[in-house]
Amino acid sequence: MIKPRTPPGVMELLPRDQIAFDRMLGTIRRTFEGFGFLPVETPVFELSEVLLTKSGGETERQVYFVQSTGGLEKGAMERLEQLRTEAGSYEFPAVSADAIRGQVQKVAALPELALRFDLTVPLARYVAEHERELAFPFRRYQMQRVYRGERAQRGRFREFYQCDIDVIGKDALSPRYDAEIPAVIHAVFGALGIGAFTIQMNHRKLLRGFFEGLGIEGERQDAVLRELDKLDKRGADAVRETLLGEEFGLAAEVADRLMAFSQVRSAGHADALARLDALGAGTPLFEQGRDELRAALERLRAMGVPESGYAINLSIARGLDYYTGMVYETTLDAHPQIGSICSGGRYDDLAGHYTKSRLPGVGISIGLTRLFWQLREAGLVDTADSSVDVLVALLDDAGLDHALALSQRLRAAGLNVETQLEPRKLAKQLQYADRAGIRFVAIRGENEAARGAVAVKDLRRGEQFEVAEDDLGRTLLVEREQLRVQARTRAEPEAGE
Amino acid sequence: MIKPRTPPGVMELLPRDQIAFDRMLGTIRRTFEGFGFLPVETPVFELSEVLLTKSGGETERQVYFVQSTGGLEKGAMERLEQLRTEAGSYEFPAVSADAIRGQVQKVAALPELALRFDLTVPLARYVAEHERELAFPFRRYQMQRVYRGERAQRGRFREFYQCDIDVIGKDALSPRYDAEIPAVIHAVFGALGIGAFTIQMNHRKLLRGFFEGLGIEGERQDAVLRELDKLDKRGADAVRETLLGEEFGLAAEVADRLMAFSQVRSAGHADALARLDALGAGTPLFEQGRDELRAALERLRAMGVPESGYAINLSIARGLDYYTGMVYETTLDAHPQIGSICSGGRYDDLAGHYTKSRLPGVGISIGLTRLFWQLREAGLVDTADSSVDVLVALLDDAGLDHALALSQRLRAAGLNVETQLEPRKLAKQLQYADRAGIRFVAIRGENEAARGAVAVKDLRRGEQFEVAEDDLGRTLLVEREQLRVQARTRAEPEAGE
Repeated sequence: MIKPRTPPGVMELLPRDQIAFDRMLGTIRRTFEGFGFLPVETPVFELSEVLLTKSGGETERQVYFVQSTGGLEKGAMERLEQLRTEAGSYEFPAVSADAIRGQVQKVAALPELALRFDLTVPLARYVAEHERELAFPFRRYQMQRVYRGERAQRGRFREFYQCDIDVIGKDALSPRYDAEIPAVIHAVFGALGIGAFTIQMNHRKLLRGFFEGLGIEGERQDAVLRELDKLDKRGADAVRETLLGEEFGLAAEVADRLMAFSQVRSAGHADALARLDALGAGTPLFEQGRDELRAALERLRAMGVPESGYAINLSIARGLDYYTGMVYETTLDAHPQIGSICSGGRYDDLAGHYTKSRLPGVGISIGLTRLFWQLREAGLVDTADSSVDVLVALLDDAGLDHALALSQRLRAAGLNVETQLEPRKLAKQLQYADRAGIRFVAIRGENEAARGAVAVKDLRRGEQFEVAEDDLGRTLLVEREQLRVQARTRAEPEAGE
Repeated sequence: MIKPRTPPGVMELLPRDQIAFDRMLGTIRRTFEGFGFLPVETPVFELSEVLLTKSGGETERQVYFVQSTGGLEKGAMERLEQLRTEAGSYEFPAVSADAIRGQVQKVAALPELALRFDLTVPLARYVAEHERELAFPFRRYQMQRVYRGERAQRGRFREFYQCDIDVIGKDALSPRYDAEIPAVIHAVFGALGIGAFTIQMNHRKLLRGFFEGLGIEGERQDAVLRELDKLDKRGADAVRETLLGEEFGLAAEVADRLMAFSQVRSAGHADALARLDALGAGTPLFEQGRDELRAALERLRAMGVPESGYAINLSIARGLDYYTGMVYETTLDAHPQIGSICSGGRYDDLAGHYTKSRLPGVGISIGLTRLFWQLREAGLVDTADSSVDVLVALLDDAGLDHALALSQRLRAAGLNVETQLEPRKLAKQLQYADRAGIRFVAIRGENEAARGAVAVKDLRRGEQFEVAEDDLGRTLLVEREQLRVQARTRAEPEAGE
């Protein structure tokens, strides 16, 4: 007997939690599609050679490699043959340390396949591979699981969903696309109904231009950025001290201006514009960044995104090598400790490893597995009701065929129906429905049958009513729709704005 | 520069094919939910020890193993240390052949993780692991990709979707559930609209009981079954000859009765019952199988499944070790060469490797990746129109904010909208929409703006019409809904039955 268990670091859900999770996935998908993004799915594994184009890096150390049984055996036999060949020409002790190490590591180091660790590298490969068959700007969404061999730890997952959108241009992509992205973020989290949130924006050109203006150039910009990124963790005083210290040797005035800059946060649309103005004149790069940020703010307003939903936050940097323009993070106003729940930005070239075409883009990613886990921990998502709308009860064997036929009619009306196929005490059937999270139980006793009617227990409201059998489907659909409208109204407190 | 390409044996789709695929997935999911099945997702990998409970077998040889970079390095170093230790105590040539082979193969043979090769083993693990938290009969659906290191071959995939449903009982599960399964199959393929199809049913107890009656017992039953399973491939004469030959040594009369039995096919409900009757009396096992088959036929009729949709086919056996009762296959009437597009059956015990509880069940699986590929090859599925309903055109920069706001209003109405963010010649924008499969283009020129109206190009119908801006969302929704109704009517020719 083998103990049934999942590997560590995965999130496996019971059905009612899976329903809650699937609803979030569905909401995100519908919103992405609402903004004209097209679906893409890529294989779970890529050729290692294709996936691992960048050398080194944290992510690469976390890659999962994949090998078929045949591949494993072939690899083992090849190693064995190599060892035997070499053993023939050397004394064994001489060959054991280095030659064996080399052979074993060489074969062990690069199996043919590896699991994707994000959706960006597969997107780059996809766009480069299918370049001629795609229309640009190419708007794609992708919602799949990715894999990272992270240290096992509470709330850290080795398998997790990412929900990504990207717009990819060919040769160029107008900065106007940068403004559309936060409108999508706003729509997604509005629809998810997990409380008030703020999309925080910054611009890498504004950042780099500001540094330039202070005489900080090249790699020193990255070092300063990395230091400023620790503001939340280390606190302002410690960071300031480091900037003044030996490593950076910045003048006090420069350090103060850096600290003041990265502490800029806006509250409201006009305030964001005013704070951008208040930064004073800067280098051409700085001005370009500021212009693009301003334009994005204006576009967001034109799209009707409420000003409470976005802000500028000049401390945000994101990945240092990758992003080149607008960058985004999103935080839940009441749960800042959760950190950014949706991040991304603008990059200059998506697929330089795979194609000579220049493919600039802008995109974001939602790590849904982690978010779902955090929302559950914070009590912000509940176990869902069942996806089953109604249980058709069965009181005796004679009623079976009628119960089956009634179930089919309710399905044809658009309801999800479970049929009780073996008669049990009604109390048991009601208890089962209640535990399973099924709202309605349809009961057809002798009296109801004589009247061509069905009794309905509404377990949610604790009520019972009778309805003509022919009207049952329509009645339950209306009830279900009412509940959905109520839920939506609760989820979107801003609907009136 | 690295050539962007996928590994062999995967199906990666362009967006409009992905949309067509996703619609099929969505249809299957909705139908499964309609019948009260609950969603389950399991991790892509399981612990090797848990996944590979059965020894040997074709599937096990096709398993993909997974190892993190850390795991690979650790494994390589362990191997190295073992080799060095042994080298210290033996002459090398003596150790090289067997000891090294043993060590290398031992370490290579069982990495910690392996990719799932079907959804049944993960279901068994899931149900055994969460037994106390699940309500039985447990009805689950699962639609995920599975992995098999198959020989690369046209139409064979190493990564493919399976769409499974199973009903799992605790201790027992009424045969009534066996009748519900073909009703689900009927609903799924009716909704998919890929042409007429027949659900073919047989019963393992009927089969084994019939063999018993002919004096064929125990393992010889399996051997005969395997032989009869080759009827389609080898032809009746060759199979009969084998049954008469040395290996089986059956009497001519027995062979003839076997051949006649396995050639039984029904056409229509009454014919199915008549053919079952015509089999004559049999052993208790035979009679139990026949009773259950009859009852399933009656339940199917009670559920309104048209009699053209199902038949008995006494040649169907399915997996020899696994199924114990009803078995199902489904074939497209006009495309028998595609083979079974949905198969499954009843089994006695799902999770004997993981739990002492007896968990009988019944289920089916649709291999959607292969089916989609075959339907495309046969011209039965088209590239879908875009998921984008409308492109909001942009004629000049001054119109940008209005175009953005209009797009948002259309989204709020429930439409999928792409906004043209940079002005281009209208002809270019229409051409783009046409190529992308977007049906409507909303154009707001000066004249339309003056009237508070929008011009709409319907690229599908080749028409243009004007509509008040406030009515645009509603109008396009109605148009979209009409098209869907038309498509559904085409897909369900049986709707009138």
